[in-house]
Amino acid sequence: MGKVNIAVGQSGGPTTVINSSLYGVIKEAIDNSDKIDKIYGMINGIEGFIEGRVMDLRNDIENEDLELLTHTPAAYLGSCRYKLPESMEDSIYREIFMKFKELDISYFIYIGGNDSMDTVHKLSVYAKTTNSPVKVIGVPKTIDNDLTLTDHSPGYGSAAKYVATTVRDIVMDANVYDTKSVTIIELMGRHAGWITAASVLARKYRGDNPALIYLPEVPFDVEAFVKNVKKELDRKNNIVVCVSEGIKDEKGTFICEYSGKAGLDNFGHKMLTGCGKYLENVIKQELGVKVRSVELNVNQRCKAALASMTDIDEAIMAGRYGVKSCLLGETGKMVAFVRKDTDEYEVELKCVDCSEVCNKEKVVPREWISEDGTDILEEFIRYVSPLIQGENKPVIENGMPKYCYRR
Amino acid sequence: MGKVNIAVGQSGGPTTVINSSLYGVIKEAIDNSDKIDKIYGMINGIEGFIEGRVMDLRNDIENEDLELLTHTPAAYLGSCRYKLPESMEDSIYREIFMKFKELDISYFIYIGGNDSMDTVHKLSVYAKTTNSPVKVIGVPKTIDNDLTLTDHSPGYGSAAKYVATTVRDIVMDANVYDTKSVTIIELMGRHAGWITAASVLARKYRGDNPALIYLPEVPFDVEAFVKNVKKELDRKNNIVVCVSEGIKDEKGTFICEYSGKAGLDNFGHKMLTGCGKYLENVIKQELGVKVRSVELNVNQRCKAALASMTDIDEAIMAGRYGVKSCLLGETGKMVAFVRKDTDEYEVELKCVDCSEVCNKEKVVPREWISEDGTDILEEFIRYVSPLIQGENKPVIENGMPKYCYRR
Repeated sequence: MGKVNIAVGQSGGPTTVINSSLYGVIKEAIDNSDKIDKIYGMINGIEGFIEGRVMDLRNDIENEDLELLTHTPAAYLGSCRYKLPESMEDSIYREIFMKFKELDISYFIYIGGNDSMDTVHKLSVYAKTTNSPVKVIGVPKTIDNDLTLTDHSPGYGSAAKYVATTVRDIVMDANVYDTKSVTIIELMGRHAGWITAASVLARKYRGDNPALIYLPEVPFDVEAFVKNVKKELDRKNNIVVCVSEGIKDEKGTFICEYSGKAGLDNFGHKMLTGCGKYLENVIKQELGVKVRSVELNVNQRCKAALASMTDIDEAIMAGRYGVKSCLLGETGKMVAFVRKDTDEYEVELKCVDCSEVCNKEKVVPREWISEDGTDILEEFIRYVSPLIQGENKPVIENGMPKYCYRR
Repeated sequence: MGKVNIAVGQSGGPTTVINSSLYGVIKEAIDNSDKIDKIYGMINGIEGFIEGRVMDLRNDIENEDLELLTHTPAAYLGSCRYKLPESMEDSIYREIFMKFKELDISYFIYIGGNDSMDTVHKLSVYAKTTNSPVKVIGVPKTIDNDLTLTDHSPGYGSAAKYVATTVRDIVMDANVYDTKSVTIIELMGRHAGWITAASVLARKYRGDNPALIYLPEVPFDVEAFVKNVKKELDRKNNIVVCVSEGIKDEKGTFICEYSGKAGLDNFGHKMLTGCGKYLENVIKQELGVKVRSVELNVNQRCKAALASMTDIDEAIMAGRYGVKSCLLGETGKMVAFVRKDTDEYEVELKCVDCSEVCNKEKVVPREWISEDGTDILEEFIRYVSPLIQGENKPVIENGMPKYCYRR
């Protein structure tokens, strides 16, 4: 049997470790050079591939850059948000597979989240129905941790670690003055509260801030929120509250939409803000205390220097496992993590059907959230703690992190 | 001559290294145990001291905690914003000096910014006019770097390093998609652009993002801004712009105030936003491209894990020098950094008159900013680079930074 070529692409929102999965794919392909010849990188995912934009990852990336990949945030190959059409009759499928054939690509690894697993699924179905030999495997990637059938996803551990440490820092900052104050920290997570839940790790002792934590999993009530903040303020001076950007009320309306009717500024532009800013105004109005809101924003997915080493290692493992799975003839599958039932944290990898992963969302179990919906319970802490262990050691040049990027 | 007691306090906004200066004060006092007996820490600065809140820093802080101080952000002793009255006849002065006498305090070290130097000055004047033997010395601390008569101030190097690395991370994040986008990063600095200027270090190569950098030192014109962004967008896909929170127009009106006439939300609350959010709306309206704004917010002054080791070391030096200066009989002075005229970066310390420091502001020299006010020049880079060198090695426990705090 002759050698085959492999292609790899990155898709969806960037994370701190999506490049570590790319590194794993490249390394595993190189380790199997007796079976794999060319390693193609799709520039800007499947969308760029359709336009013919690929690079040669075996020859066109310097060794030093390759090693920097695991410390480099965002997506080295560039990314896309592209959903394949439902109908397999659509000419786009034929186009893609013609490109595969042209470049003699037999394996395609797609690193991404929900939508990317949908792409993997569809391409594998198309391959089967057209008797194409191309194998397609998905490698999970999401800071949101909302992919099903896997214990967790690479990208989440680093986001959780960033949030936990940063909230701890902000709590220190919030404590310096001897006056009543409220700090509202808005965290990522439109539909699932995994990232926000990690803020519970910021507590240094029982009863420490963050005093209140709100996830989208539990309906949010503004009045109850004000009451809870007031109660906490009676107990101590400085209150820190963490909220998911995606908190919504009983009716399913996002709290951030409450600000939607805000007026226009001098230039006639509509001023839209997040739920944190909105709740800041509510507290200012209702309780009259010093209040500020902080959005951690994109740093949650790109602060490489504070990445979890466990997350980096697992992202590499997942990339390697993707290549191994192709070599074993698997297709239409996503690499998944299984947490072993051991005292010390241990994972093993397996393949799960992409069709069962795509277009589904895993949320934080209700029983990991306190009954009143304002706190995160021990079960979650046991779940998340192993994922944030280990410190990244970024390469530093002249006081700044050194990254690799396409020139 | 018998032993004397010393008091130390922290004041103003916290920084990542104000605790390193506290560490320096404690260590130097301990090193001079033949001359110094008790080391009092003022809880919440001079304001808490007036209320009688002090702690015994020689006996009531564990050794392990003492060593953690240099890795701990915010203010261990707590802080205050308190300006002493102009009139020396005010009874508050007598009260403070009675407390000094009560606790047998001969030396007082105040770690803080502009207002704190005003306090140092006033207390030293009061001491002189009342023949009190108390010596008062200020140790500089500000992320804003706006203290005069010193090359730079502890706290700034870490803020600059945080901003430079974080903007580099966000630039990586901004580059992943193949579509036109604008990212506006709002940075701290109400009156001086030192922090924002540091974003120039984020560039990995000539022509890299941030494409435009705006400081409060140069009047800001919204129309010219839109034109500049448009011009940059013609050159490349993803534009990152850095703006100081304090940018203002020709007339001195803060750009963030442009949003002040924004209407009310559903609950009747006024929605106020920063200049970043405001400019985001302007770009959306005028250019119709994908645009987002990011505020780095309090992380600029509390991200201990990313502190500059040079900054930490110098903060300790400054604290130690403050105690040494008291022992030499100095009073009403601030510890200042002098950059030596050497090829390799070297500083020495000296004392300057607080009366010449307080209530003044050092801004970025106009000649370090490009003529059109959208870029930062080489002179600034030479100035700031040495200040961000060296990585903090935080103490990690269970994947999280370990901090010390009063219990």
